[in-house]
Parts: sequence; structure tokens; C-alpha cells
Amino acid sequence: MNAPEKLDQLLAVTRAPLPASAKGAIAGSRPDIRVPVRDVRLTNGRTASLYDTSGPYTDPQADIDVRRGLGSVRAPWIAERGDTECYEGRLAHIGDDGGKQGGQGAERIAQLRADAAGLQRQPRRARAGANHTGNVTQMHYARRGIVTPEMEYVALRENGRLEWTRELLGDARREARRRGNPLGATIPDVITPEFVRGEVAKGRAIIPANINHPEIEPMIIGRNFRVKINANIGNSAVTSSIEEEVEKLVWSIRWGADTVMDLSTGKNIHTTRDWIVRNSPVPIGTVPIYQALEKVGGVAEDLTWDIFRDTLIEQAEQGVDYFTIHAGVRLPFIHLTAERVTGIVSRGGSIMAKWCIAHHQESFLYTHFEDICDIMKAYDVSFSLGDGLRPGCAADANDEAQFAELRTLGELTQVAWKHDVQTMIEGPGHVPMHMIQANMTEQLKHCHEAPFYTLGPLTIDIAPGYDHIASAIGAAMIGWMGTAMLCYVTPKEHLGLPDRDDVKQGIIAYKIAAHAADVAKGHPAARARDDAISHARFEFRWEDQFNLGLDPDTAREFHDETLPKDSSKTAHFCSMCGPKFCSMKITQEVREFAAAKGLSEADALRAGMMEKSKEFAAQGGEFYIPITKI
Amino acid sequence: MNAPEKLDQLLAVTRAPLPASAKGAIAGSRPDIRVPVRDVRLTNGRTASLYDTSGPYTDPQADIDVRRGLGSVRAPWIAERGDTECYEGRLAHIGDDGGKQGGQGAERIAQLRADAAGLQRQPRRARAGANHTGNVTQMHYARRGIVTPEMEYVALRENGRLEWTRELLGDARREARRRGNPLGATIPDVITPEFVRGEVAKGRAIIPANINHPEIEPMIIGRNFRVKINANIGNSAVTSSIEEEVEKLVWSIRWGADTVMDLSTGKNIHTTRDWIVRNSPVPIGTVPIYQALEKVGGVAEDLTWDIFRDTLIEQAEQGVDYFTIHAGVRLPFIHLTAERVTGIVSRGGSIMAKWCIAHHQESFLYTHFEDICDIMKAYDVSFSLGDGLRPGCAADANDEAQFAELRTLGELTQVAWKHDVQTMIEGPGHVPMHMIQANMTEQLKHCHEAPFYTLGPLTIDIAPGYDHIASAIGAAMIGWMGTAMLCYVTPKEHLGLPDRDDVKQGIIAYKIAAHAADVAKGHPAARARDDAISHARFEFRWEDQFNLGLDPDTAREFHDETLPKDSSKTAHFCSMCGPKFCSMKITQEVREFAAAKGLSEADALRAGMMEKSKEFAAQGGEFYIPITKI
Repeated sequence: MNAPEKLDQLLAVTRAPLPASAKGAIAGSRPDIRVPVRDVRLTNGRTASLYDTSGPYTDPQADIDVRRGLGSVRAPWIAERGDTECYEGRLAHIGDDGGKQGGQGAERIAQLRADAAGLQRQPRRARAGANHTGNVTQMHYARRGIVTPEMEYVALRENGRLEWTRELLGDARREARRRGNPLGATIPDVITPEFVRGEVAKGRAIIPANINHPEIEPMIIGRNFRVKINANIGNSAVTSSIEEEVEKLVWSIRWGADTVMDLSTGKNIHTTRDWIVRNSPVPIGTVPIYQALEKVGGVAEDLTWDIFRDTLIEQAEQGVDYFTIHAGVRLPFIHLTAERVTGIVSRGGSIMAKWCIAHHQESFLYTHFEDICDIMKAYDVSFSLGDGLRPGCAADANDEAQFAELRTLGELTQVAWKHDVQTMIEGPGHVPMHMIQANMTEQLKHCHEAPFYTLGPLTIDIAPGYDHIASAIGAAMIGWMGTAMLCYVTPKEHLGLPDRDDVKQGIIAYKIAAHAADVAKGHPAARARDDAISHARFEFRWEDQFNLGLDPDTAREFHDETLPKDSSKTAHFCSMCGPKFCSMKITQEVREFAAAKGLSEADALRAGMMEKSKEFAAQGGEFYIPITKI
Repeated sequence: MNAPEKLDQLLAVTRAPLPASAKGAIAGSRPDIRVPVRDVRLTNGRTASLYDTSGPYTDPQADIDVRRGLGSVRAPWIAERGDTECYEGRLAHIGDDGGKQGGQGAERIAQLRADAAGLQRQPRRARAGANHTGNVTQMHYARRGIVTPEMEYVALRENGRLEWTRELLGDARREARRRGNPLGATIPDVITPEFVRGEVAKGRAIIPANINHPEIEPMIIGRNFRVKINANIGNSAVTSSIEEEVEKLVWSIRWGADTVMDLSTGKNIHTTRDWIVRNSPVPIGTVPIYQALEKVGGVAEDLTWDIFRDTLIEQAEQGVDYFTIHAGVRLPFIHLTAERVTGIVSRGGSIMAKWCIAHHQESFLYTHFEDICDIMKAYDVSFSLGDGLRPGCAADANDEAQFAELRTLGELTQVAWKHDVQTMIEGPGHVPMHMIQANMTEQLKHCHEAPFYTLGPLTIDIAPGYDHIASAIGAAMIGWMGTAMLCYVTPKEHLGLPDRDDVKQGIIAYKIAAHAADVAKGHPAARARDDAISHARFEFRWEDQFNLGLDPDTAREFHDETLPKDSSKTAHFCSMCGPKFCSMKITQEVREFAAAKGLSEADALRAGMMEKSKEFAAQGGEFYIPITKI
């Protein structure tokens, strides 16, 4: 079986729509703006409408062939702006797929390329003017007052179906309590395209959207929008294959990943990326230094600006939407890590530290930062300024190395903004709860409100095997405080490469953290889903409880372990308490009792008019007998 | 196979010591005070010493027979106080094991009683004086200035092995950063018996320790001590057996449960409790109204004070250490729940609400509260004042029903303290992140710093199947803010009764939350374990990383999925990044490079003296070739 066939098999599993769900669309101002939502049919006849990251994969109508890639949502929008040109692009090199001077046989590489032939696109870049590099970033448009289709798209996407949330949250009495504490965020009741434009223009939000990735369904990352999550996939030298990685992509977005980073470091790194980008409806991020290092056979000190630059262009042409660039790992900061318990724990950071020390030179990422900006703006690749000096344990949290780098990232943000390049800032790592707020405060202060994109943070170090939980605590807190995107952590963190189930566990933990943050911030669309599931819970609509949850399959499976029958899906109890002890059942009985008397329960109770009814009468008698008498 | 044999088989699995661990003891001021610790042998020749809740079960030397029960740690302490007396005790009734008027056959009950014959103890109670009920509570002693052996025991237990933590945390430079933000807690560097006495006297901490449960290894619950966790077990009408419940007890304390609540509601409720209490080295809590309701055949309105009182005495004689009593569910508060989305979600709360409405009378738990205190103080049973009106969803959080009850619990706390009865207060439930602080603030204010014991809180409602995570976020936060004990939530919450693996998942999630809170509060003994594991991580001591973690088995299993060989347990990389991209390896190389030159890395870097070495020299050459040329 060759690779694409194996992939088709893998994908078949993950293409089924989620239970009781249909792909819906919110129509925009023009026919080609159709924002996907997941419409969930409830058993009470209503429909709940949820944010949907899964792309066309969960649409049974969609004709998908992973050998050709997805359709191009954005192609007309990019074309009609008239500021880009197709060109021949960079030549493919044997080193692009890892291994110096042909570490793999030419035959194997030829086969890989042939398999991926249907995925090739001619690259596009900004048309340069007479005296300047072209600029096609969303920030560039925003600053010139242009509302792009991408901006309208994300506005509609953030709101979701307003009618649904309004129906559910219309009760004014609860409104006051429902609205969160935004801690400085300024989220309007309804997100307009103009609001999006303003946020992108100010640099407070980014829309990662490379012009060579027209397949994406645009999304936005910023403090005044829903908190997003990123899932990492990618092969390593030790394990995994292209097929598995593409399937992990589809699997990740099924459970809610808003962006996916391809962190491949092994062989076939270029070709894996072709497969991933062409089949991804969500923005793809990479750490280009990983591929650059493969090109120099893994020897950090052999890296050069030219090799790195060539890698940026290679990946920009493929359509990568954001690059992690560790330009804040500067020579003078490295000694600050010398007394740390775990030193430098970022792969990119340690590679650059080694380079700086070997050459005793300032990092070429820092010295060539404006050259990098020139590339970014020609394709609209966004910066994710990497935190190469993030702490790797609680003992190293919030130290001078970390904050010196953060301040540098703030400097670089202003350089990037000079070029209208969209920019977000990466953050830690390992931070105990009481030190989290300082991270957010310093980031807002030094990085001028550019979106923060944090890994966790992990609040403790003693939970290997459960670091998705240890970090979801920190992620929820920092998300509430203002972080725009949370990079997930899987149960395998610190132990090994995540498999398919680990990816799902990590994503669900981070959807929990992101949603907890949205609710706490008072995002107007967030709480509707909680209230819908709570109503279902009180009304014993078990199917709706499952289907409105983050993972309907697992919820159903857990319920059915003890009560598998269909009849128990409408039963007024579950196996937790059984029928006699079901508090919700008892509460309903109380309410029914009041209603039967033609009174509202509240009135009845308030007026003290509730009488002891016959059905409530004591049955009396000797109902227990000393055991000695039997 | 009869029940005890099946139980022996089940227990065999869980009696093995955790990997590389041995039962150690901290010696107290008298030979019979020996506080257990888990000593973990590290591969670098050192020993880490951890708080140990697992009791004698993990001691291979201990001779344990579940038919006889555990040895009596506290028997001499209780006896020598000379203020108690043995007495015949209450007669056993057929209704004690559930089912009105012998729902089960007399034969079955006789068999159950015979199996549990070796577990029977003659009950003990406070000796009454001429004009007063006797009082044997730890609070009573504390207020008279007496430091009991129990108080010394918990002081030693809280500190752990001071020499170990001091060795690890001696570095003054990190001290400032390590110390947390106690948010009003006042935790001394070393806990003394006198400090414990003071906290118990003030009511800020409790030592749940029924004089009829001499088997426990005492522990303390209070804001100025380690945050504790509780695990719930218990059969329900729908599922599970005595054997499974006893095994779940042993399993729970193996993973770190500090107390266990037996929430059985099904048949054999009395006998199950005999098995659990006699075999438990941790305090056992119950909700007596559950058994009382069984005695009246599940008809809430048939409950009476006499039946409830009889049930309290029955359970106090068996040795239950704390009772959840929903005395704050008062008649005038019930109407406040009428407009809630999920009404009353506490089982005990809904039972009492139904009783109050049916009789249109004030709750007998409230009107008889001082009578209850008289029972509590005669056995030293602690109050866990139940939050019967806790919110069951985000929409109902922090409403008037909840806070009206909380204020009542504060009133009752002062009544309990008048009788020197130890008291803690139960708390929610479902609370979004931004509303958590108010819960803690109100509790501290209205309940006079009595320990807070919260269930979660769950921060969102949309994660059925993962509510251990959704609630661990809230639990960690409220633990940091001052909650003394966290009641765990398992993945099965809202869906079904937890099995063995669910119990473990819930406990680990809550150990994470509790430890995150301890670190944030700056508990002096907490961070040592994090630092020990971080050192192991940096030094690639894989075995130590596993063994210092909360769940060594899972950590090892995850690591071995991709790198199963023994040699990879000392390998300087893992499957996550592989050897080339291992940041810790690269950092170490940088440090070794500096050391080889006879310089400390920091000095070398600071002085700018790091030279470009031969081994770091660029290898040059054309290392990548256009693919078109191959």
C-alpha cells in the first residue's frame, strides 16, 4: 500500500461529522464569504451553533482528495487585490527534505516528490513597486483603512450565530453575572469587520494568512477575540511518518485546534509540509530554524544567514502562515542562563545560543531582522517571536534571562510593525501560579499589546504524564489575563512524541482552558454553550449533554459504561446517584408540585403557601427493626 | 469465592511499594509517634522524601488482614487521656444496611455481619461529667493549651524531612523567587506542635480524628498547611460492591487522597462502612442523611430528627471522622433556587429542601444543631457543613441562594465552636474563574476562617468526560486563595459512577491542583519536589523523573512507548525532539565547553572570552545541491 492510500484509510475515520451535527454557514456581504459553523440538532427541536475549526473534512458533501489538497477559499480575494504576482519560485534542493548531501537515496526522494506532485502550486508574492518591496499583509491593508474579506470573515466567525446566543442569553437578570471580568480587554457585544480592522491595524490582533495558503478559513488571534489554541504535530528523527502527520492535522482540527504547528525535524521535512499545508484549512506555523539545521546536518554552528534566508523563502512559498523566529536570543543574554536549573529548554533557543557562542557573534536572526521583515511582508507571513530563553522549570521562572529576551521581543515588534508585518509574541513555559500575572503584565508593557501566545504555562513540575493538566491550569489563568493563543501540551510532554490519542487529550485540555478564559473575560458568545448544556442537564436531555460537550464520543461512552440502554438516555437519573438520590429529579418534583397547584414555585414558597400534600404524607410505622429481632 | 478472598486478590495489586520507594518514618518525642514518609532512592545516590498518604499498605513488612482491620496508631493516646469510656453501643438494626423492613433477606444480612465479625470494636465515647456532656475534641484540648500527640504528629508530617528540603532549597538566590504569594495565609518555615495547637484552637484548622477511628495516621486541614484532597468512593443503587469500595479506598490513598468520603447510598451501607473505616489509615467522611434516607425507604419527607440522630450515633460509634451536615438549607432559602437553571444539585440539599417544603417547617438539622454538637463532641467527629445550595452550573454561580446558605454556615460555625466542635465549610461547585475569588472572600468573612473545603470548582460546563480538568483549574486557584481541602472530581462526573481508573485520574488531577496551590502559597516544603525533578530532568536521570512524579507508572509507560530499551533511561535525549534537537543536551554541551576551558560558563560569557573552538568550527562546503541536479 502506498502512502496516499494509507492516508485515505486513516482519514476515513475522521471525516464523519460529529454526532447530531451538520455543517452550517453564516453568509457574508458577498457570495464567497461563507463562514462555517457546526449546527447541533438538539432533542428539544432547537439548534445550537458552535465555532467550527474542522474545515471541509466534516462536511459529507465536500469532495476531498488529499493528493490534490483542499479548495481555495481565499483565491479570489487575493487575486482581486491585484498586488501579487505568480513567479517561478525557488528551486527544490535535495537538502530540503533533510540530510546533508543526500542522506536519503535519490530514488526515495523522487518517489516522495511524485506522490506530492498534485499538491504543487506556483508561488505568489507581492509585486514590488519601483522603490520598495511589495507589502501584502493584513496589517498593511488595515492601516490603510481597507477592510479585507478576511477581516469580515473573522468578524462573522467570532460572533457565531447571534440569534442563537441571544435566544439563550436573553435573560437580563443573569446578564450582570454572566459578563465576565475582562481585566483590560475590550470585547464589544458584536464584532464588526471595522473592529477587526482596527485591532489588526493597532497590532493587537493578527490574521495569519499567507497568500500562498489560500485554502485557509481565516481566523484571528488577539486579546479581544476568543482565545485560540494551537496543536503541534510533526515527525522527529525517532518516529512517525507523513501519513500520520497529515492525519494528525485533520484529527487536531476535528477537536478544535485553531492553528497547527508543523514541528517536523526528521526526514522528508519539505514534502511533509506540502502535504500538511495543502490539506489544512487552519493556519500553519513552523520553526524554520529546524529545517535550516537539517540542511547543515544538525551542526548548529554551521548555520548561516543565507541558509536561513533560503529556508524562509522556501517555506513562505509553500504557504506557511507564521514563523517562530528566536530573534530575542541575543549573545549578551546567554550567560544569564548559566545558573539555571534547566538552562535553555527551547530547541530553537539552544540552537541559536550554540551558534552565538561558537562564533562569539550576535545572532544573525537579530542582525538580519529587517531582512526577515522584507520576506514576511511579501507573502504575509506573521511573526511568532520565539521565547528561546523561556524557563524550563519553576525554579527558573521569571528570571532575568527570560525578561531580557521579552524586552527584546518588544523592540523587534516595533521593527516588524514599521514594515506592517503581523506579529505575536511567544511566552513561557513553566511558571507557578503566583508568578503568571507578571508574565502578562510585562508582555503587555514591553510588547505594546501584540498578541501573546503562550505554551501552558505549567504550574508545577511533578506531573510527568499529566502535564496537559498541570499546564491547562496556567493556560486558563493567563488566557483570562489576556493571552490570545494557547499552545497545547499533551500528556506525553517531557516523555515522548504524542500519538493520536495524546493529541486529542492535549487539545481537549486546552479547549477547556481557552473556554474557561473566554467565559471569565466575558466573551459575549462563549457562555451560550455552557448554558445550553446546563439546561440539557437539568432537563435530562442526555443526548444533548453529550453532543454539546467538547468530546461527545467520550461523554456518551462514559455514560453508557453503566447505563447502556437507549431508554436511559431520557432517564431522569444516572448511575452516579441513582434515581432516589438524584438532586435534579428531586428539584423538578418540587417545581412540579408547585406548578400542579397553579402557583409558580417561587410565589408558592415566598408566600409560605406550600401545603403538605397527600403524596408527601409520611407513611409512618415501624420501619426499622433491631437486627437482634430477625 | 467469598468476599474477603476476592478482596485479598484485589488488594494484592495495590500493596506493592511505588517504584524505588521505601516506607520511612520521622520520629517524634515519644516512641509511638512515628510519622510515615515515602523515601525515594534516586540514581544519584540521594534520597528524596515525600508526604505519604498510603498507610501501611505500601509497607511490605506490614502484616495486613482486611478481615481484622489495621493496627491502632492512636489507641494509647486516646486511652491515656483518660476521658473516654467503652460502652455497649447502639443496637444494630436491619434498616442499617438499607431497605425498609428488610429489603434484603435476613440470611444475606447475617452473612454480611459474619464476614465483618473481625472488624467489630466496642465503641468509645467521652465520659460525661456531673453536669455536662463530655468533650474529647482536638479543639477542646487545643483551647485548654494541651498539645496532643495528634498535633505533634501532624506538625512533623507537614514539615517532612527538613534536612532533605533544606539541602535542595538552600540556594538563597532562588529563595526570593521560590517563596510564593500566600494571599493572607501565614505559613511558618517550620511547623511546630504549638503552631498546630494554636491553629486548631482558633478554628483555622481541624484534625479529623474520631476516637473510634484509632487506626488513622493523623492529618490536618487548614489554610496554613498543605492543601489536602478528598476522594469520594461509595456504592450506589445502580452498581458496585463492598470489595470494590474497600479496594478503591486503598487505591485512593496510594495515589494521594488525604481523606476519603464514603458516599454509599445502596445496600449494605452499614457493613460497607465497617470495612472501610477499619481498613482506613486516613480520615473517613460521610453524609449521614444518605443512610437516614435509606432507612425510610427513600422517602425524604419521612425523615425525622430521631432517625437522623440515631444514624449519627451509629456512624460515630463506627468511627467516621467527619460528617457532612446540610444544616444551612433553611426553609426561607429554598425559593431562592426557583429561577436557577439547574436548581439544587446537592443530593443532601435536595433531600432537605423536599423535607422542608413537604412539612413547611424549618430543617431539623438547623433546629437541632446544638443536639448534633453534643454528639460530635462526645466522639470528636468534625463538622463538614454542607453546601446544599451550591450552584450546579456557571449560570447559577454566586447567587443569593448560595450566599444566604454560606452566611448561615458561618452562624453555625460559631455555635459549633461554642461546643469546641471542629468545623470546616463546604463550598462550590460550578464557578467561572472570575467569580472564584468572591467565594473565598465571602467564606473567610462569614465563616471566621474555618477551613474551606471545596468541590472543584468547575470553571465551565461544556466538558463532560473531562470535568476533572475543568475543575482542577478552579481547584488550583481556590486552593491558592486559601481553600484547605479540595474534593476531587473524576472524569465520570455528571455521567456515571467512577471506576478504579477514574478514581486515579481524579486524584492525580487534584494532586496537581493542590500542589500548584502549595507552590503558589509558598509552602516551604512543597517546591523541593519540583526542584528535585527539574534537576533530574536536566541531568537526564529518567528513572528519577518517573519516580519523583505523581504517577511513576504512567510516566515510565509513556516514555517506553517509543524508547523501551533500558539504555534509553540514561540517554541524553528522548523521542520528543531526538538527539539533535535536544535543548537540554545542547545547553549541557555549552556548559561543558566552558568547563573544559577551566572557566565557569557564566564567567566565560560575561567576560566575552568564549572563543570559537575547533570543534565548533564551520565545516563549510556545498552541503546542499539543487534537486534538479541529482
